[in-house]
Amino acid sequence: MTDQWLDTLITATPQEGFELAVLLSRRSVKYTQPDLSILQKLRPEYADSADGLTAAAHVLALNFQTVAAANNYWRP
Amino acid sequence: MTDQWLDTLITATPQEGFELAVLLSRRSVKYTQPDLSILQKLRPEYADSADGLTAAAHVLALNFQTVAAANNYWRP
Amino acid sequence: MTDQWLDTLITATPQEGFELAVLLSRRSVKYTQPDLSILQKLRPEYADSADGLTAAAHVLALNFQTVAAANNYWRP
Amino acid sequence: MTDQWLDTLITATPQEGFELAVLLSRRSVKYTQPDLSILQKLRPEYADSADGLTAAAHVLALNFQTVAAANNYWRP
Amino acid sequence: MTDQWLDTLITATPQEGFELAVLLSRRSVKYTQPDLSILQKLRPEYADSADGLTAAAHVLALNFQTVAAANNYWRP
Amino acid sequence: MTDQWLDTLITATPQEGFELAVLLSRRSVKYTQPDLSILQKLRPEYADSADGLTAAAHVLALNFQTVAAANNYWRP
Repeated sequence: MTDQWLDTLITATPQEGFELAVLLSRRSVKYTQPDLSILQKLRPEYADSADGLTAAAHVLALNFQTVAAANNYWRP
Repeated sequence: MTDQWLDTLITATPQEGFELAVLLSRRSVKYTQPDLSILQKLRPEYADSADGLTAAAHVLALNFQTVAAANNYWRP
Repeated sequence: MTDQWLDTLITATPQEGFELAVLLSRRSVKYTQPDLSILQKLRPEYADSADGLTAAAHVLALNFQTVAAANNYWRP
Repeated sequence: MTDQWLDTLITATPQEGFELAVLLSRRSVKYTQPDLSILQKLRPEYADSADGLTAAAHVLALNFQTVAAANNYWRP
Repeated sequence: MTDQWLDTLITATPQEGFELAVLLSRRSVKYTQPDLSILQKLRPEYADSADGLTAAAHVLALNFQTVAAANNYWRP
Repeated sequence: MTDQWLDTLITATPQEGFELAVLLSRRSVKYTQPDLSILQKLRPEYADSADGLTAAAHVLALNFQTVAAANNYWRP
């Protein structure tokens, strides 16, 4: 993957930080499986399954830990 | 998702922080599956299953780690 | 859930901190499934299963990380 | 559980800290399932299974993170 | 494994840090299974499976936590 | 286990730290199952399975977090 997609972990607000964590989670999957047609095909396997959604939320929670720490938790 | 739902990680009390972690966990799932009718349909898969509940508690524990750190653990 | 159940993460001893982590883990499950009769019914699914017990211990370990950090690890 | 089993997270050496993490992991399981005869019966389910052993190692790794941080990693 | 593959956790940018986390994740697998022909054979098991991809993303998220902390989150 | 196997978490380089994390992960399994003949027998269950390898990489990632923090990430 040669495109530039991650310039900084710093965001203006917690919600933007959460959305950056979503991006990190999606990119994580693409580093393992770059073929978008396969990813598309697999989507129902996790997006329509309670276990799959919880597992995705788990990855997101870890990435949000990283982004939140990077931003000193957006403390006022 | 364009609505504003996360303005701060700072809460007045640990219990409010715990409830914010619940919100983060629920929003995590919605970022992957925004269709509420599917989420409604999947609810019994995790809410009536020991494995599903433990997995949800796992995500919540991670998000509570983040919120608690943000609040310096509400130390007196 | 409107009752007040979590006033502080600070405890006098590591063991009380561990027991608070147990409470956090139990409450986590109740936020997802508040119906106690269902929780009662599901108990054998995890309490009599090696996988279920290990998964519960996993959640507890995460919550103990949070409580231990909050208390500066009860360093003397 | 009323016995006193956890007085401190501080240990003299990393190896003692690792062994304390083993103890924390075992106690975690006992808080969920205090019946020793059931625990005895379940032992082969995880101790003779690759998945079970890896899951137990996972819990131990988390508890070792906590104990190691408590001891400032036994830095010289 | 005697080759030198990890000289530093410090990277110039977050994206390079993310890619180092990818490398750490791949190397982790090779420490357990050094036989490349087996790894090649197993690839479809995780790269074409939603559960497998999420599990791989999970490991990557943990390694990215480590690399990001090492770099003080590339704060400006 | 009475042998002395863990004297310090401090290593000269990140790669030695990674290898110490491998050792911690292996020892974790032995604390639960000390019988080497059983461990030998179980090896194909995880070393020839995508899920097993990812789970082992997960434990390793956690232990590397601990070792890396102990060494202040080998920052120059």
